[in-house]
Amino acid sequence: MFPLPAPMRAALDAAQAAADQGEVPVGAVVTHGSRIIATGGNRPRGGFDPTAHAEIVAIRAAAEYLGTDRLIDCDLWVTLEPCAMCAGAIAHARIRRLYYGAADPKGGAIEHGPRLFEQPTCHHRPEIFPGIGEGEAAALLRGFFAARR
Amino acid sequence: MFPLPAPMRAALDAAQAAADQGEVPVGAVVTHGSRIIATGGNRPRGGFDPTAHAEIVAIRAAAEYLGTDRLIDCDLWVTLEPCAMCAGAIAHARIRRLYYGAADPKGGAIEHGPRLFEQPTCHHRPEIFPGIGEGEAAALLRGFFAARR
Repeated sequence: MFPLPAPMRAALDAAQAAADQGEVPVGAVVTHGSRIIATGGNRPRGGFDPTAHAEIVAIRAAAEYLGTDRLIDCDLWVTLEPCAMCAGAIAHARIRRLYYGAADPKGGAIEHGPRLFEQPTCHHRPEIFPGIGEGEAAALLRGFFAARR
Repeated sequence: MFPLPAPMRAALDAAQAAADQGEVPVGAVVTHGSRIIATGGNRPRGGFDPTAHAEIVAIRAAAEYLGTDRLIDCDLWVTLEPCAMCAGAIAHARIRRLYYGAADPKGGAIEHGPRLFEQPTCHHRPEIFPGIGEGEAAALLRGFFAARR
């Protein structure tokens, strides 16, 4: 075991906070250099916003913070493989590196489904680092859905 | 020539308003029954928000208006073929019908690129009606980019 990088630790905490609000537990963080500049928890239901996945919440907050729509030199850390919507947002935001935890065979769009960053028309592809903190991220999701069955 | 449906007329007006603000001219409208409940213009630059495509702006406004994250029985009208981010948002929002104007071979994700609604993992597919108002929508985009060259 090695300790998780601090941004993924923060993303997992945001996922737990989402679960505490009754939302599917996914969390995300944007870093600029080594600094966390934005954190987002999944909140489509409570926020009345179908686009409010953790990644979108964090990307919007980071862009507002930096006063730009291009997150150059920024990295995104998220507990679950991003969906097509979020992968598209990552490309639009020009995220430099994408770190994610658990794979998502049903909804993921990075290594599953449309594999968006492998599409010839994709205009920006981040460096991709999967599997960081995946055990804890997946356990959060399993616990959440088990409690609802 | 037949007159454009009122929602596409409103989406084209929103696209023109975006151009007037220096944004790539794309506009969108959400209807509930025959009523327009939300309008969105593309505004990533001015809004410091890489996710602020016209469709996302309109979907978020419609969901907030209705107080839900599921736009059941709602239709989206947009002047340009949606990208992957927006197509993903359309699926998450459970949009019933998608009407769009101009095709977008470079950035579109409906009839081009990843063709998201044809992916086996896609969990919601709206009815799709392309080409409505495409001449005017494409002319707006051509004019915008020609003025910037």
